[in-house]
Amino acid sequence: MQKHIDQLAQLLAKIPGLGPRSARRAVLYMLKHKERTLMPIINQMTSVAENVQTCRICGNLDETNPCDICTHPTRDAHSLCVVTDVADLWAIERAQVFKGRYHVLGGVLSAIDGVGPESLRIHELLERLQSNNNITEVILALSATLDGQVTMHYIQKALSHMPLHISVLSHGVPMGGELDYLDDGTINAAFGARRQLA
Amino acid sequence: MQKHIDQLAQLLAKIPGLGPRSARRAVLYMLKHKERTLMPIINQMTSVAENVQTCRICGNLDETNPCDICTHPTRDAHSLCVVTDVADLWAIERAQVFKGRYHVLGGVLSAIDGVGPESLRIHELLERLQSNNNITEVILALSATLDGQVTMHYIQKALSHMPLHISVLSHGVPMGGELDYLDDGTINAAFGARRQLA
Repeated sequence: MQKHIDQLAQLLAKIPGLGPRSARRAVLYMLKHKERTLMPIINQMTSVAENVQTCRICGNLDETNPCDICTHPTRDAHSLCVVTDVADLWAIERAQVFKGRYHVLGGVLSAIDGVGPESLRIHELLERLQSNNNITEVILALSATLDGQVTMHYIQKALSHMPLHISVLSHGVPMGGELDYLDDGTINAAFGARRQLA
Repeated sequence: MQKHIDQLAQLLAKIPGLGPRSARRAVLYMLKHKERTLMPIINQMTSVAENVQTCRICGNLDETNPCDICTHPTRDAHSLCVVTDVADLWAIERAQVFKGRYHVLGGVLSAIDGVGPESLRIHELLERLQSNNNITEVILALSATLDGQVTMHYIQKALSHMPLHISVLSHGVPMGGELDYLDDGTINAAFGARRQLA
Protein backbone atom coordinates (compact mmCIF):
# COMPACT_ATOMS: atom_id res chain seq x y z
CA MET A 1 0.00 0.00 0.00
CA GLN A 2 1.37 3.33 -1.10
CA LYS A 3 2.80 5.45 1.74
CA HIS A 4 0.53 8.51 1.47
CA ILE A 5 -2.59 6.42 0.91
CA ASP A 6 -1.62 4.45 4.02
CA GLN A 7 -1.11 7.64 6.04
CA LEU A 8 -4.54 8.91 4.99
CA ALA A 9 -6.11 5.57 5.93
CA GLN A 10 -4.40 5.71 9.33
CA LEU A 11 -5.73 9.22 9.96
CA LEU A 12 -9.26 8.19 8.99
CA ALA A 13 -9.01 5.04 11.12
CA LYS A 14 -8.81 7.22 14.26
CA ILE A 15 -12.35 8.51 13.68
CA PRO A 16 -14.79 6.68 15.97
CA GLY A 17 -16.88 4.21 14.00
CA LEU A 18 -14.17 3.73 11.38
CA GLY A 19 -11.61 0.97 11.96
CA PRO A 20 -8.48 0.35 9.87
CA ARG A 21 -10.48 -1.83 7.48
CA SER A 22 -13.29 0.62 6.71
CA ALA A 23 -10.76 3.46 6.55
CA ARG A 24 -8.89 1.61 3.79
CA ARG A 25 -12.15 0.88 1.97
CA ALA A 26 -13.14 4.55 2.25
CA VAL A 27 -9.81 5.74 0.84
CA LEU A 28 -10.02 3.30 -2.06
CA TYR A 29 -13.59 4.36 -2.85
CA MET A 30 -12.66 8.03 -2.77
CA LEU A 31 -9.63 7.44 -5.03
CA LYS A 32 -11.75 5.54 -7.52
CA HIS A 33 -14.33 8.34 -7.59
CA LYS A 34 -11.94 11.26 -7.37
CA GLU A 35 -14.05 13.88 -9.14
CA ARG A 36 -17.37 12.81 -7.67
CA THR A 37 -16.26 12.12 -4.08
CA LEU A 38 -12.70 12.99 -3.07
CA MET A 39 -12.55 16.52 -4.53
CA PRO A 40 -15.96 17.65 -3.18
CA ILE A 41 -15.09 16.20 0.25
CA ILE A 42 -11.78 18.08 0.33
CA ASN A 43 -13.52 21.34 -0.64
CA GLN A 44 -16.32 20.89 1.87
CA MET A 45 -13.91 19.93 4.67
CA THR A 46 -11.79 22.99 3.96
CA SER A 47 -14.83 25.27 4.03
CA VAL A 48 -16.07 23.71 7.28
CA ALA A 49 -12.60 23.87 8.88
CA GLU A 50 -12.25 27.54 7.99
CA ASN A 51 -15.72 28.73 8.92
CA VAL A 52 -17.31 26.59 11.61
CA GLN A 53 -16.85 27.77 15.19
CA THR A 54 -18.32 27.07 18.61
CA CYS A 55 -21.21 29.39 19.56
CA ARG A 56 -20.16 31.46 22.59
CA ILE A 57 -23.67 31.38 24.03
CA CYS A 58 -24.86 27.80 23.68
CA GLY A 59 -21.85 25.75 22.52
CA ASN A 60 -23.41 24.72 19.19
CA LEU A 61 -21.26 24.52 16.04
CA ASP A 62 -22.12 27.03 13.31
CA GLU A 63 -20.58 29.45 10.83
CA THR A 64 -21.92 32.42 12.74
CA ASN A 65 -21.14 33.26 16.37
CA PRO A 66 -23.60 33.43 18.17
CA CYS A 67 -25.14 30.58 16.19
CA ASP A 68 -28.25 30.58 14.04
CA ILE A 69 -30.41 29.05 16.76
CA CYS A 70 -29.35 31.58 19.41
CA THR A 71 -30.05 34.55 17.12
CA HIS A 72 -33.14 33.19 15.34
CA PRO A 73 -35.97 35.74 15.87
CA THR A 74 -38.89 33.28 16.02
CA ARG A 75 -37.41 30.64 18.31
CA ASP A 76 -38.85 30.55 21.80
CA ALA A 77 -36.55 32.53 24.12
CA HIS A 78 -38.33 31.21 27.23
CA SER A 79 -37.37 27.57 26.82
CA LEU A 80 -33.86 26.17 27.15
CA CYS A 81 -32.90 22.57 26.37
CA VAL A 82 -29.73 21.29 28.04
CA VAL A 83 -27.93 18.58 26.02
CA THR A 84 -24.69 16.65 26.46
CA ASP A 85 -23.27 17.12 23.02
CA VAL A 86 -23.79 18.87 19.67
CA ALA A 87 -24.81 15.48 18.22
CA ASP A 88 -27.78 15.43 20.61
CA LEU A 89 -28.73 18.97 19.58
CA TRP A 90 -28.70 17.82 15.95
CA ALA A 91 -30.86 14.80 16.81
CA ILE A 92 -33.48 16.98 18.55
CA GLU A 93 -33.44 19.44 15.64
CA ARG A 94 -34.00 16.57 13.18
CA ALA A 95 -37.01 15.47 15.22
CA GLN A 96 -38.42 19.04 14.89
CA VAL A 97 -39.93 18.72 18.34
CA PHE A 98 -38.38 21.67 20.15
CA LYS A 99 -38.52 25.32 19.14
CA GLY A 100 -36.57 26.92 22.00
CA ARG A 101 -32.85 27.34 22.46
CA TYR A 102 -30.07 25.02 23.61
CA HIS A 103 -27.20 24.76 26.02
CA VAL A 104 -24.50 22.22 25.17
CA LEU A 105 -22.67 20.88 28.25
CA GLY A 106 -19.85 19.24 26.33
CA GLY A 107 -20.11 15.97 28.26
CA VAL A 108 -21.51 14.45 31.44
CA LEU A 109 -20.10 14.18 34.95
CA SER A 110 -18.09 11.01 35.34
CA ALA A 111 -16.17 9.89 38.40
CA ILE A 112 -14.41 7.16 36.41
CA ASP A 113 -13.27 9.45 33.58
CA GLY A 114 -12.47 12.25 36.04
CA VAL A 115 -15.00 14.69 34.55
CA GLY A 116 -16.03 17.21 37.21
CA PRO A 117 -18.50 20.12 36.97
CA GLU A 118 -15.66 22.53 36.06
CA SER A 119 -14.90 20.54 32.85
CA LEU A 120 -18.47 21.00 31.61
CA ARG A 121 -20.27 24.19 30.64
CA ILE A 122 -22.39 24.11 33.83
CA HIS A 123 -20.97 27.38 35.15
CA GLU A 124 -21.89 29.04 31.83
CA LEU A 125 -25.40 27.58 32.15
CA LEU A 126 -25.89 29.13 35.60
CA GLU A 127 -24.53 32.48 34.43
CA ARG A 128 -26.76 32.38 31.39
CA LEU A 129 -29.86 31.69 33.49
CA GLN A 130 -28.95 34.36 36.05
CA SER A 131 -28.31 37.07 33.46
CA ASN A 132 -31.28 36.18 31.23
CA ASN A 133 -34.64 36.48 32.97
CA ASN A 134 -36.49 35.51 29.80
CA ILE A 135 -35.79 31.84 30.32
CA THR A 136 -38.55 30.24 32.36
CA GLU A 137 -38.29 26.59 31.38
CA VAL A 138 -35.28 24.24 31.40
CA ILE A 139 -35.52 20.79 29.78
CA LEU A 140 -32.73 18.44 30.83
CA ALA A 141 -32.37 16.20 27.75
CA LEU A 142 -29.40 14.12 28.87
CA SER A 143 -28.81 10.43 28.18
CA ALA A 144 -30.53 7.83 30.33
CA THR A 145 -27.17 6.52 31.53
CA LEU A 146 -25.86 6.55 35.10
CA ASP A 147 -23.54 9.48 34.33
CA GLY A 148 -26.35 11.32 32.54
CA GLN A 149 -28.68 10.90 35.52
CA VAL A 150 -25.99 12.04 37.98
CA THR A 151 -25.39 15.12 35.84
CA MET A 152 -29.14 15.89 35.74
CA HIS A 153 -29.37 15.66 39.54
CA TYR A 154 -26.36 17.93 39.91
CA ILE A 155 -27.83 20.56 37.58
CA GLN A 156 -31.30 20.28 39.12
CA LYS A 157 -29.77 20.98 42.55
CA ALA A 158 -27.74 23.92 41.22
CA LEU A 159 -30.91 25.42 39.71
CA SER A 160 -33.16 24.73 42.70
CA HIS A 161 -33.05 28.32 43.99
CA MET A 162 -34.16 29.78 40.64
CA PRO A 163 -37.82 30.24 39.66
CA LEU A 164 -37.72 27.78 36.75
CA HIS A 165 -39.86 24.97 35.37
CA ILE A 166 -37.42 22.07 35.11
CA SER A 167 -38.31 18.87 33.29
CA VAL A 168 -36.58 15.73 32.05
CA LEU A 169 -37.38 13.48 29.08
CA SER A 170 -39.70 10.55 29.74
CA HIS A 171 -38.41 6.99 29.79
CA GLY A 172 -40.23 4.07 28.22
CA VAL A 173 -40.57 1.75 25.26
CA PRO A 174 -39.01 3.37 22.17
CA MET A 175 -41.37 3.74 19.17
CA GLY A 176 -41.22 0.56 17.09
CA GLY A 177 -39.43 -1.22 19.92
CA GLU A 178 -40.32 -4.81 20.73
CA LEU A 179 -40.71 -5.58 24.44
CA ASP A 180 -38.87 -8.82 23.83
CA TYR A 181 -35.64 -7.02 23.04
CA LEU A 182 -35.80 -4.36 25.76
CA ASP A 183 -33.67 -4.38 28.88
CA ASP A 184 -35.22 -4.71 32.33
CA GLY A 185 -34.54 -1.07 33.19
CA THR A 186 -36.58 0.21 30.26
CA ILE A 187 -39.48 -2.16 30.93
CA ASN A 188 -39.40 -1.10 34.57
CA ALA A 189 -39.48 2.58 33.60
CA ALA A 190 -42.28 2.01 31.08
CA PHE A 191 -44.43 0.27 33.71
CA GLY A 192 -43.66 2.87 36.35
CA ALA A 193 -44.67 5.76 34.07
CA ARG A 194 -47.64 3.98 32.46
CA ARG A 195 -50.37 6.22 31.12
CA GLN A 196 -53.99 5.78 32.22
CA LEU A 197 -56.30 5.46 29.21
CA ALA A 198 -59.63 4.82 30.88
CA MET B 1 -27.52 21.11 11.74
CA GLN B 2 -25.53 23.78 10.00
CA LYS B 3 -25.78 23.68 6.17
CA HIS B 4 -22.13 23.10 5.28
CA ILE B 5 -21.64 20.55 8.04
CA ASP B 6 -24.72 18.78 6.72
CA GLN B 7 -23.39 18.83 3.15
CA LEU B 8 -20.08 17.35 4.30
CA ALA B 9 -21.92 14.63 6.25
CA GLN B 10 -24.01 13.82 3.17
CA LEU B 11 -20.89 13.50 1.02
CA LEU B 12 -19.22 11.22 3.56
CA ALA B 13 -22.40 9.15 3.90
CA LYS B 14 -22.00 8.01 0.28
CA ILE B 15 -18.78 6.17 1.12
CA PRO B 16 -19.48 2.45 1.47
CA GLY B 17 -19.36 1.39 5.11
CA LEU B 18 -20.42 4.84 6.32
CA GLY B 19 -24.12 5.54 6.71
CA PRO B 20 -25.70 8.94 7.51
CA ARG B 21 -25.27 8.30 11.22
CA SER B 22 -21.57 7.42 11.23
CA ALA B 23 -20.92 10.22 8.71
CA ARG B 24 -22.43 12.74 11.16
CA ARG B 25 -20.41 11.26 14.02
CA ALA B 26 -17.24 11.47 11.92
CA VAL B 27 -17.86 15.12 11.01
CA LEU B 28 -18.50 16.04 14.64
CA TYR B 29 -15.36 14.22 15.79
CA MET B 30 -13.26 15.95 13.15
CA LEU B 31 -14.68 19.36 14.06
CA LYS B 32 -13.93 18.80 17.73
CA HIS B 33 -10.35 17.79 16.95
CA LYS B 34 -9.72 20.25 14.17
CA GLU B 35 -5.94 20.59 14.54
CA ARG B 36 -5.29 16.94 15.30
CA THR B 37 -7.70 15.34 12.81
CA LEU B 38 -9.50 17.58 10.32
CA MET B 39 -6.51 19.62 9.12
CA PRO B 40 -4.14 16.62 8.68
CA ILE B 41 -6.91 14.72 6.84
CA ILE B 42 -7.51 17.65 4.48
CA ASN B 43 -3.78 17.93 3.75
CA GLN B 44 -3.32 14.21 3.22
CA MET B 45 -6.42 13.97 1.01
CA THR B 46 -5.18 16.86 -1.11
CA SER B 47 -1.76 15.26 -1.52
CA VAL B 48 -3.31 11.90 -2.42
CA ALA B 49 -5.78 13.50 -4.85
CA GLU B 50 -3.00 15.39 -6.61
CA ASN B 51 -0.42 12.63 -6.80
CA VAL B 52 -1.98 9.17 -6.84
CA GLN B 53 -2.62 7.66 -10.25
CA THR B 54 -3.44 4.26 -11.74
CA CYS B 55 -0.39 2.27 -12.87
CA ARG B 56 -0.56 1.78 -16.64
CA ILE B 57 0.97 -1.71 -16.40
CA CYS B 58 -0.83 -3.42 -13.52
CA GLY B 59 -3.70 -1.12 -12.48
CA ASN B 60 -2.37 -0.52 -8.95
CA LEU B 61 -2.69 2.94 -7.35
CA ASP B 62 0.60 4.75 -6.67
CA GLU B 63 2.32 8.12 -6.92
CA THR B 64 4.62 6.84 -9.66
CA ASN B 65 3.49 5.41 -12.98
CA PRO B 66 4.42 2.57 -13.52
CA CYS B 67 3.97 1.80 -9.84
CA ASP B 68 6.56 0.86 -7.24
CA ILE B 69 5.76 -2.85 -7.47
CA CYS B 70 6.05 -2.96 -11.29
CA THR B 71 9.43 -1.18 -11.26
CA HIS B 72 10.88 -2.76 -8.08
CA PRO B 73 14.20 -4.39 -9.05
CA THR B 74 14.11 -7.34 -6.64
CA ARG B 75 10.49 -8.46 -7.13
CA ASP B 76 10.07 -11.69 -9.06
CA ALA B 77 9.34 -10.85 -12.69
CA HIS B 78 8.35 -14.45 -13.47
CA SER B 79 5.29 -14.58 -11.28
CA LEU B 80 2.07 -12.64 -11.86
CA CYS B 81 -0.83 -12.52 -9.43
CA VAL B 82 -4.23 -11.61 -10.91
CA VAL B 83 -6.56 -9.85 -8.43
CA THR B 84 -10.03 -8.33 -8.67
CA ASP B 85 -9.30 -5.03 -7.03
CA VAL B 86 -6.58 -2.82 -5.56
CA ALA B 87 -7.94 -3.67 -2.09
CA ASP B 88 -7.06 -7.35 -2.72
CA LEU B 89 -3.56 -6.35 -3.85
CA TRP B 90 -3.18 -4.42 -0.57
CA ALA B 91 -4.40 -7.43 1.43
CA ILE B 92 -1.87 -9.76 -0.24
CA GLU B 93 0.92 -7.21 0.28
CA ARG B 94 0.01 -6.94 3.97
CA ALA B 95 0.28 -10.74 4.27
CA GLN B 96 3.82 -10.51 2.79
CA VAL B 97 3.28 -13.83 1.07
CA PHE B 98 3.90 -12.95 -2.58
CA LYS B 99 7.00 -11.35 -4.06
CA GLY B 100 6.01 -11.22 -7.73
CA ARG B 101 3.96 -8.65 -9.62
CA TYR B 102 0.25 -8.01 -9.97
CA HIS B 103 -2.48 -7.48 -12.50
CA VAL B 104 -5.63 -5.73 -11.25
CA LEU B 105 -8.75 -6.70 -13.24
CA GLY B 106 -10.95 -3.96 -11.84
CA GLY B 107 -13.86 -6.29 -11.13
CA VAL B 108 -15.24 -9.73 -11.96
CA LEU B 109 -17.49 -10.93 -14.76
CA SER B 110 -21.13 -10.64 -13.78
CA ALA B 111 -24.14 -11.44 -15.90
CA ILE B 112 -26.48 -9.74 -13.42
CA ASP B 113 -24.50 -6.50 -13.24
CA GLY B 114 -23.78 -6.58 -16.98
CA VAL B 115 -19.98 -6.80 -16.55
CA GLY B 116 -18.47 -8.45 -19.63
CA PRO B 117 -14.80 -9.24 -20.40
CA GLU B 118 -14.40 -5.92 -22.21
CA SER B 119 -15.20 -3.97 -18.99
CA LEU B 120 -12.31 -5.66 -17.17
CA ARG B 121 -8.58 -5.43 -17.80
CA ILE B 122 -8.51 -8.97 -19.28
CA HIS B 123 -7.41 -7.79 -22.71
CA GLU B 124 -4.51 -5.93 -21.08
CA LEU B 125 -3.60 -9.11 -19.19
CA LEU B 126 -3.39 -11.15 -22.42
CA GLU B 127 -1.33 -8.45 -24.13
CA ARG B 128 0.96 -8.21 -21.12
CA LEU B 129 1.55 -11.98 -21.12
CA GLN B 130 2.08 -12.10 -24.87
CA SER B 131 4.56 -9.23 -24.93
CA ASN B 132 6.44 -10.31 -21.79
CA ASN B 133 8.03 -13.75 -22.05
CA ASN B 134 9.53 -13.43 -18.58
CA ILE B 135 6.23 -14.32 -16.93
CA THR B 136 6.00 -18.08 -16.44
CA GLU B 137 3.51 -18.35 -13.58
CA VAL B 138 0.02 -16.87 -13.18
CA ILE B 139 -1.78 -17.06 -9.83
CA LEU B 140 -5.51 -16.36 -10.08
CA ALA B 141 -6.28 -14.85 -6.65
CA LEU B 142 -9.95 -14.01 -7.18
CA SER B 143 -12.74 -14.24 -4.64
CA ALA B 144 -14.38 -17.60 -3.95
CA THR B 145 -17.73 -16.27 -5.17
CA LEU B 146 -19.70 -17.50 -8.16
CA ASP B 147 -18.67 -14.46 -10.24
CA GLY B 148 -15.06 -14.87 -9.14
CA GLN B 149 -15.03 -18.53 -10.17
CA VAL B 150 -16.64 -17.73 -13.54
CA THR B 151 -13.98 -15.07 -14.13
CA MET B 152 -11.20 -17.51 -13.23
CA HIS B 153 -12.55 -20.09 -15.70
CA TYR B 154 -12.79 -17.45 -18.41
CA ILE B 155 -9.19 -16.30 -17.86
CA GLN B 156 -7.89 -19.86 -17.58
CA LYS B 157 -9.46 -20.66 -20.96
CA ALA B 158 -8.08 -17.49 -22.52
CA LEU B 159 -4.58 -18.43 -21.30
CA SER B 160 -4.79 -22.12 -22.19
CA HIS B 161 -2.69 -21.78 -25.37
CA MET B 162 0.20 -20.10 -23.50
CA PRO B 163 3.01 -22.05 -21.83
CA LEU B 164 2.17 -20.91 -18.29
CA HIS B 165 1.86 -22.47 -14.86
CA ILE B 166 -1.58 -21.37 -13.73
CA SER B 167 -2.77 -21.81 -10.14
CA VAL B 168 -5.65 -20.72 -7.94
CA LEU B 169 -5.78 -20.14 -4.17
CA SER B 170 -6.80 -23.11 -2.02
CA HIS B 171 -10.18 -23.27 -0.31
CA GLY B 172 -10.69 -24.49 3.22
CA VAL B 173 -11.13 -23.61 6.87
CA PRO B 174 -9.78 -20.08 7.53
CA MET B 175 -7.08 -19.86 10.23
CA GLY B 176 -8.75 -19.41 13.62
CA GLY B 177 -12.08 -20.37 12.05
CA GLU B 178 -14.48 -22.53 14.03
CA LEU B 179 -16.12 -25.32 12.03
CA ASP B 180 -19.34 -24.53 13.80
CA TYR B 181 -19.64 -21.15 12.13
CA LEU B 182 -18.54 -22.17 8.63
CA ASP B 183 -20.92 -22.55 5.70
CA ASP B 184 -21.45 -25.92 4.03
CA GLY B 185 -19.49 -24.91 0.91
CA THR B 186 -16.34 -24.21 2.92
CA ILE B 187 -16.61 -27.43 4.92
CA ASN B 188 -17.16 -29.32 1.66
CA ALA B 189 -14.08 -27.71 0.11
CA ALA B 190 -11.99 -28.37 3.21
CA PHE B 191 -12.94 -32.06 3.19
CA GLY B 192 -12.40 -32.39 -0.55
CA ALA B 193 -8.91 -30.87 -0.38
CA ARG B 194 -7.90 -32.59 2.88
CA ARG B 195 -4.21 -33.17 3.40
CA GLN B 196 -2.84 -36.63 4.19
CA LEU B 197 -0.66 -36.57 7.31
CA ALA B 198 0.23 -40.25 7.66
